[in-house]
Amino acid sequence: MAKEKKLVEDITPMSEDFAQWYTDVVKKAELMRYSTVKGCMMILPNGYAIWENIQKNLDAMFKETGVENVYMPMFIPESLLQKEKDHVEGFAPECAIVTLGGGEELEERLIVRPTSETLFCDLYSNTVQSYRDLPKLYNQWCSVVRWEKTTRPFLRSSEFLWQEGHTVHATAEEAQERTEQMLNVYAEFCEKYLAIPMIKGRKTDKEKFAGAEATYTIEALMHDGKALQSGTSHNFGDGFARAFDMTFTDKDNKIKYVHQTSWGLSTRTIGALIMVHGDDSGLVLPPRIAPVQCMVIPVAQHKEGVLDKANEVYETLKAAGIRVKIDDSEKSPGWKFSEQEIRGISLRVELGPKDIEAGQAVVVRRDTREKITVAMDELAARIPEIMEQMQNDMFQRALKHREEHTSDAVTYEEFRETIANKPGFVRAMWCGDEACELKIKEDTTATSRCMPFEQHKLSDVCVCCGKPAKTMVYWGKAY
Amino acid sequence: MAKEKKLVEDITPMSEDFAQWYTDVVKKAELMRYSTVKGCMMILPNGYAIWENIQKNLDAMFKETGVENVYMPMFIPESLLQKEKDHVEGFAPECAIVTLGGGEELEERLIVRPTSETLFCDLYSNTVQSYRDLPKLYNQWCSVVRWEKTTRPFLRSSEFLWQEGHTVHATAEEAQERTEQMLNVYAEFCEKYLAIPMIKGRKTDKEKFAGAEATYTIEALMHDGKALQSGTSHNFGDGFARAFDMTFTDKDNKIKYVHQTSWGLSTRTIGALIMVHGDDSGLVLPPRIAPVQCMVIPVAQHKEGVLDKANEVYETLKAAGIRVKIDDSEKSPGWKFSEQEIRGISLRVELGPKDIEAGQAVVVRRDTREKITVAMDELAARIPEIMEQMQNDMFQRALKHREEHTSDAVTYEEFRETIANKPGFVRAMWCGDEACELKIKEDTTATSRCMPFEQHKLSDVCVCCGKPAKTMVYWGKAY
Repeated sequence: MAKEKKLVEDITPMSEDFAQWYTDVVKKAELMRYSTVKGCMMILPNGYAIWENIQKNLDAMFKETGVENVYMPMFIPESLLQKEKDHVEGFAPECAIVTLGGGEELEERLIVRPTSETLFCDLYSNTVQSYRDLPKLYNQWCSVVRWEKTTRPFLRSSEFLWQEGHTVHATAEEAQERTEQMLNVYAEFCEKYLAIPMIKGRKTDKEKFAGAEATYTIEALMHDGKALQSGTSHNFGDGFARAFDMTFTDKDNKIKYVHQTSWGLSTRTIGALIMVHGDDSGLVLPPRIAPVQCMVIPVAQHKEGVLDKANEVYETLKAAGIRVKIDDSEKSPGWKFSEQEIRGISLRVELGPKDIEAGQAVVVRRDTREKITVAMDELAARIPEIMEQMQNDMFQRALKHREEHTSDAVTYEEFRETIANKPGFVRAMWCGDEACELKIKEDTTATSRCMPFEQHKLSDVCVCCGKPAKTMVYWGKAY
Repeated sequence: MAKEKKLVEDITPMSEDFAQWYTDVVKKAELMRYSTVKGCMMILPNGYAIWENIQKNLDAMFKETGVENVYMPMFIPESLLQKEKDHVEGFAPECAIVTLGGGEELEERLIVRPTSETLFCDLYSNTVQSYRDLPKLYNQWCSVVRWEKTTRPFLRSSEFLWQEGHTVHATAEEAQERTEQMLNVYAEFCEKYLAIPMIKGRKTDKEKFAGAEATYTIEALMHDGKALQSGTSHNFGDGFARAFDMTFTDKDNKIKYVHQTSWGLSTRTIGALIMVHGDDSGLVLPPRIAPVQCMVIPVAQHKEGVLDKANEVYETLKAAGIRVKIDDSEKSPGWKFSEQEIRGISLRVELGPKDIEAGQAVVVRRDTREKITVAMDELAARIPEIMEQMQNDMFQRALKHREEHTSDAVTYEEFRETIANKPGFVRAMWCGDEACELKIKEDTTATSRCMPFEQHKLSDVCVCCGKPAKTMVYWGKAY
């Protein structure tokens, strides 16, 4: 039994050390490994399959809005990156640079893309001539490189996977519409598939993307009360258009600059899944995003008929479109249960001689461990229902957790005390001055997460300086 | 009308200049553009959508054989690449090398992956301990970089997209089985989806992959009679295993080296699609791989009821699962036809007032331009049948072309004359000596494409040196 217990014992309890718990879950669920290149991940099958499901569902949502996929080079000539001043200032410090190619020193150094605005500008400046060519709604799924000093699995790594959408439009209004539309797509995707409730809002100027006129964000609250920026959507106005001479002839025959957006969501969302839904036994995956939704586990499988029946159930569930596997290995049932739980597989179906005799199986929900006895011939109909219920419950639980960890503060003392003592978001009014953001960060380590679309007037004055308030802000410590 | 004609007029006829025809088709079909980085492609929506369909179908075939997807870092530490001697010798000359990261010179230079054997070896050497951990069947979809001096769209570029599968096994037999299995998957995929017949065979030692014990290949014949290597599968034996110390404890409790394979297929296959099926009007895509299978084109759409009916047809076909679009732009029908033809969209449905009156539509096949009149209410049923027929016809036509451009040669004079005067494959016997391969290449510029699985004894002696022959070889000029 010593070995049997080991799987779960290796996971540090969340309450003891959240960071270590996170690392343990990532490792024991075999989601990724670090490679020999500092800060670069090897994403293993259990982790990559989650990303594949994210890609599949999000990509379908993009395409419904008219987005088309492309692939752009991974290298950016240094001179191209330098064309937009704010942008290069934001990214230059964390670039990886190719100086040698084919055995020779390159005439111009190549930046491994940290993001691809400049490449898309280059493309659009050459392919957009008329209003008839607009809008262009391109996206790519790729990896990008940002040299990081400290890294954490999925949350911060020198290379990470993401999608980056880049659009150009004839009018400022259309660009703004698209910026908000894609933020809404992200929020809808995260809530519907990942069961993670999102705060939608706008970033302050201090926190916005290098080169953007406005950055919008979806923010989620992790189990430890820290915030995670989970997706961003930027409106560039015509800033890049002017730097890259991206013009078009409009209907009125005048030459105008295009208006541009970009938006990205990355493998960080896998980190969010772990930290919003995980527990001390490992990962817990919402059924809609789980690569394996259901594991059939025979009990006392050496007994006559058990394996046959288990395989029959497996085939039935598979035919019903459920992402199901069967664990008919020679491990003990307890060991199999632990493995299924660590990997976060949404449900397991336990099936032993007594169950078979009674014409039933026991379905166990990963999130609540609730055991549901289901008649064998109702499994294919009941399991999708149980998964729907589980998906909804997981969202509601995450929402409740966020609500319980969201506080309002009116005075600065209240604000500081809440940040110091109660993990979670603090909502407070802000004057709009960057000086207050800086002071708050220095005093509390909390940063402005966003100015939410859903505003409440908590008081008339800034929580920090007491000057007239402009907006309510979500503040918090963040990943 | 001058402008109307321009689309097709810009395509150089194939018979006049095949290379220019190819470039024109790539450009006019808007498949890709060159970026400002030498030899790197921007793959545009029309091109990338083909790749997405290749990915989707091939990936499903991989998964059916038990393969799991992962993602490995794009960087390889120089010391890791150098561990296997033949491998580094093969790839070092064409590497792109990162020397700077985060503003500092790196302690160890990083190679942008030209292929990822070494990274997978690193992973497997750390994760495989027991025979229970075997086999590992991993694959990744990614881009790789090989610094090329001369480049051609899709066929040879400094960065290209591909998949690379890397497996390790307990026995040499199992590795050999997997090597052949994946070659068969490639051939089946190319024949079934791309409608391109393949010659399956083994590469000579001269042509095999750097570090492999044996390389297997599928070879296709392009319209101009040149060969294109379209996918390769390698058996590494235990060569890398010894270099990377990839061992496991077998059932007999002995420590053994694993046996390894890798296999890859790239965006070159898009080049093959163009050069096998294209014609002087542009691309011709087989229905199973075409991103858009059918374009509904209203004729005289200003007339009452035409657009409504066209939209109705579009909705019906869409509901039937056909990848359909409608071109209801204000361009003339002729212009729309040209665009649809250039892009290679398999079918178009023409629909004018007279058709509507007669309760029918005209379906035009892209490959033969055959016009098929179909009753309106039979469109959804007939179009899939027409596409099946077209798919089969395209394969048969490509096969016939290959057969007509495959010659046998017994004497060296015959061989040289055939290579010089008749485009296509030449089959001839070979002694197995590299000297003959080199001489043939020097005399004719043809290379050995493969030693096919399907052998015929054309004579007893080598076509080049007259010594006893070991095997029949397909020879040809190649991309």
